[in-house]
Amino acid sequence: MNAFPKTRAFVWKKDRLLLLDQRVLPHRLVWKTCRTWSDVARGIKEMVVRGAPAIGCVAAYGVVLAAKAKAFRTREDQMRALEHAFDGLLQSRPTAVNLRWALERLRLIWQEPETYGVHVLTPQGVAKCLEQEAIKVEEEDREFNSRIGRLGAALLPLDAVVLTHCNTGSLATAGLGTAFGVLWTAHRGNKIRKVIASETRPYLQGARLTAWELQQEKIPFELITDSMAAHFMKTEKIDAVIVGADRIAANGDTANKIGTYSLAVLASHHDIPFYVAAPFSTVDLTTATGRDIPIEERSAKEVTWVRGQSIAPKNTLARHPAFDVTPSDLIHAIITDRGVAKPPYTESLKDLFERQPVLI
Amino acid sequence: MNAFPKTRAFVWKKDRLLLLDQRVLPHRLVWKTCRTWSDVARGIKEMVVRGAPAIGCVAAYGVVLAAKAKAFRTREDQMRALEHAFDGLLQSRPTAVNLRWALERLRLIWQEPETYGVHVLTPQGVAKCLEQEAIKVEEEDREFNSRIGRLGAALLPLDAVVLTHCNTGSLATAGLGTAFGVLWTAHRGNKIRKVIASETRPYLQGARLTAWELQQEKIPFELITDSMAAHFMKTEKIDAVIVGADRIAANGDTANKIGTYSLAVLASHHDIPFYVAAPFSTVDLTTATGRDIPIEERSAKEVTWVRGQSIAPKNTLARHPAFDVTPSDLIHAIITDRGVAKPPYTESLKDLFERQPVLI
Repeated sequence: MNAFPKTRAFVWKKDRLLLLDQRVLPHRLVWKTCRTWSDVARGIKEMVVRGAPAIGCVAAYGVVLAAKAKAFRTREDQMRALEHAFDGLLQSRPTAVNLRWALERLRLIWQEPETYGVHVLTPQGVAKCLEQEAIKVEEEDREFNSRIGRLGAALLPLDAVVLTHCNTGSLATAGLGTAFGVLWTAHRGNKIRKVIASETRPYLQGARLTAWELQQEKIPFELITDSMAAHFMKTEKIDAVIVGADRIAANGDTANKIGTYSLAVLASHHDIPFYVAAPFSTVDLTTATGRDIPIEERSAKEVTWVRGQSIAPKNTLARHPAFDVTPSDLIHAIITDRGVAKPPYTESLKDLFERQPVLI
Repeated sequence: MNAFPKTRAFVWKKDRLLLLDQRVLPHRLVWKTCRTWSDVARGIKEMVVRGAPAIGCVAAYGVVLAAKAKAFRTREDQMRALEHAFDGLLQSRPTAVNLRWALERLRLIWQEPETYGVHVLTPQGVAKCLEQEAIKVEEEDREFNSRIGRLGAALLPLDAVVLTHCNTGSLATAGLGTAFGVLWTAHRGNKIRKVIASETRPYLQGARLTAWELQQEKIPFELITDSMAAHFMKTEKIDAVIVGADRIAANGDTANKIGTYSLAVLASHHDIPFYVAAPFSTVDLTTATGRDIPIEERSAKEVTWVRGQSIAPKNTLARHPAFDVTPSDLIHAIITDRGVAKPPYTESLKDLFERQPVLI
């Protein structure tokens, strides 16, 4: 068994960023080349790449592409271009907060280079520092995934049947994945009997991506429609539900892929522990509660068309909130790279925030 | 506005039964011709026709086709053929009980013609009686739908937003529909602000059939994925959830399309009334509780393929229970043609059973 999954969502190539086109997986492997920050923003918006941690990483590389875009005469010229790229990338997905976190981390370099330990910078120097930092964002995410995996696997019983939603693996992060990393680590420790993967309509990340990753990693699994989760919670033994997160508010309320809230209510009804796994960068202490998290509404056509086939009558009005918010009282624990937070989250998340992050 | 919907699931033509092929709706209108009982059984099994009340009606016509199949020399010859058809049709869908109910109703004619008021019968006479009875099953279902519609509409508040699952309209019955009939009748009485239709994976009866019927009847609606129901229950006003049924046990436990149980748990969590609407023939007093209802497991391919497109990696193991069971404690009322049953159902359903059915 490999130490890391075989799959990668993106590959940095110094003057360009390659994105694995997740829209055509698992049937085709197509790499898209991004040469500008707006290529990256479009890739995020059009879901070529998705998954909050992966989006943070690729947005960071988007900034690097902006910094290297042309031979800037002055740092001011470059700064204007970088601010423009910052805004454009930030708007590409409003709910995920890792995007903002990664962008703000890079912005420190061009706005306050002294806090980064650098005092005199040329445009080329800024670009070099940004690239180093973007690589660090990626490497850290990989390390955070491993820690989340270890901490989460310790929470699962032996011979566990675990239900997961959407895709949270190596296609959604830089490494093992978040919730998927927990499953992967627990499977390595012989703790997993089987994974139940919900297909995750409308985008089918569960059926297309998680099933593919589970297959590649030889983890036993069953695919179900989202509507079957309650039935199997009632009729079979399910030991835990584990999901990722796009943003976690200060009180623990968690925005994640649409359908997550439904699973949390159903898990609670069936007395099944419900876990969230995410890098600590997903925790946004400036967002007080879930009510303050903007929910991205995407095109109705993404609901009424499946893989190029129309599934509803013409002119059907469909809704498409891409995310929902799970109130913290339905969450048993939030597994982060800094440790496992338990209720009350307002305190436990603040404690983890104040804990010095272990940097690599 | 028409008194009845424009759509019909089946049309009896004396020597053949036409089935509207619901697998290719809403994009194509194709009628399949059944000339034998096994054509009808195949039509049920392959979901050309679905919906418990509609299946009851077409199974009855299937028996008529068996009775008319050839020039039987004796009543015994015909009886053997009818028993064979009875068994074959019964096996075409194990969960829905209207199928058995309709078949047993017709069997009385060839097994105990005297209880039917006939004493001497030729094979031709039996066939004629069976045809009359099958037509009566259909006409009664139409009348039952209207009563269910009136009784159910009375339960809804003004300006109601109602969520429904699967398809329970004129494609699932002989008339207005069950849950759909309630929506249709309430809409006629200006009580409906909008219907929320869940798409109902894997077969997409909500997206393909209910959306189509709602559009034809000009009832305002929004289509959602099954995974969005909880989100909208939390973030928007939803006044009621109403669904059909394939079998209702003596204690009120209700088998219905997969995803129904999930909606019932979610409705309970959000304090939203959850109603079941079905003809009384769906109530099976010989089935004590939901645990005694067999759940049909269908092909995994119906989950991993959508409209001819594969949505999962090759060799993915998918589960496909076609139905689930909602425990009666999550059901606020069961709306039947004989009246509205309320908890405790063991008593209220028995009361309705003992009430003389109002025949047409």
